[in-house]
Amino acid sequence: MRRIIFVLIAVITADIVAYRTHASGPSDGDSSPIYGVKIPAGYRDWKLIAVDNLLIEGKVDQLRAQLGNDIAIKAFKEGTVPFPDGAIIAAIHWTRVPSEDNNKVLAGSFPGAQSFVIRSPVNVQFMVKDSKKYAATGGWGFADFTGEKPGDKALHETCFACHTPAKDRDYVFTRYAP
Amino acid sequence: MRRIIFVLIAVITADIVAYRTHASGPSDGDSSPIYGVKIPAGYRDWKLIAVDNLLIEGKVDQLRAQLGNDIAIKAFKEGTVPFPDGAIIAAIHWTRVPSEDNNKVLAGSFPGAQSFVIRSPVNVQFMVKDSKKYAATGGWGFADFTGEKPGDKALHETCFACHTPAKDRDYVFTRYAP
Repeated sequence: MRRIIFVLIAVITADIVAYRTHASGPSDGDSSPIYGVKIPAGYRDWKLIAVDNLLIEGKVDQLRAQLGNDIAIKAFKEGTVPFPDGAIIAAIHWTRVPSEDNNKVLAGSFPGAQSFVIRSPVNVQFMVKDSKKYAATGGWGFADFTGEKPGDKALHETCFACHTPAKDRDYVFTRYAP
Repeated sequence: MRRIIFVLIAVITADIVAYRTHASGPSDGDSSPIYGVKIPAGYRDWKLIAVDNLLIEGKVDQLRAQLGNDIAIKAFKEGTVPFPDGAIIAAIHWTRVPSEDNNKVLAGSFPGAQSFVIRSPVNVQFMVKDSKKYAATGGWGFADFTGEKPGDKALHETCFACHTPAKDRDYVFTRYAP
């Protein structure tokens, strides 16, 4: 009987530990290290904040779009800084490639025109505002996913430091595109 | 009495003419020539289809985003061709400029990185699907606005011809970004 009770307690304890580990996020396989941010459902359908592109000669050539949930979009439009809790910004990065098809079409009316389009997804990043939970990092939790897989701890240690120069704009580089 | 009736008929006729002129679109100041397409309310908040950029050395340097209303987005996601009536695609074009601020931040971790961002709006274009109304142009009505002002008739005469190479995809160049 004692043995059964002991086993039962061990099983229940293991369940509680597993549950807590899952709920806390950081050690969960599909949430970002340090911050425990998961991919927000439906983010691809969020509204557009802005677009940009990034070039590192021979290494990176990306077209990028930043999307926001409704709380983030409202704050962007009204110029609210700091962003309110619940705001989430998604940054989607794709490879940029020349479009031979578009260039053929453009050649008639616009000689020399070069059209660059998206080829494939690279990664997607998120900033989640929770002023209490993420007080140590400007109120933002960060995440960087390649496909469904979050980057490692070392990568996520760079997020907040990199965003610090934008402190005056609540650590957000992107400006709302008119 | 006859005079009063004559005046009444004249007033009513003028009202009908004014109404018809307005309703028909093309001669209305804020709708596109030929097609009579107006700027759709709330289009800036539509969902993102894709982004691209266009370069014409020394002339054009643009970052671009295509947004769709719910009917268009559903069709893009499901690969529905031709697009159903009611689908509207918006293409927003902005000038692309280097971001000195971003480049300073990037220089530490990514030497030589060049960030390009949006500076100001250039124009916005719309494709409105109405297979009956626009039967002569693949079922699409076109519009090109600079600010609130539609381009002239000569400009709008180029729209359909330019889109014809994309006939297999219902005259739509843009592909949905994953």
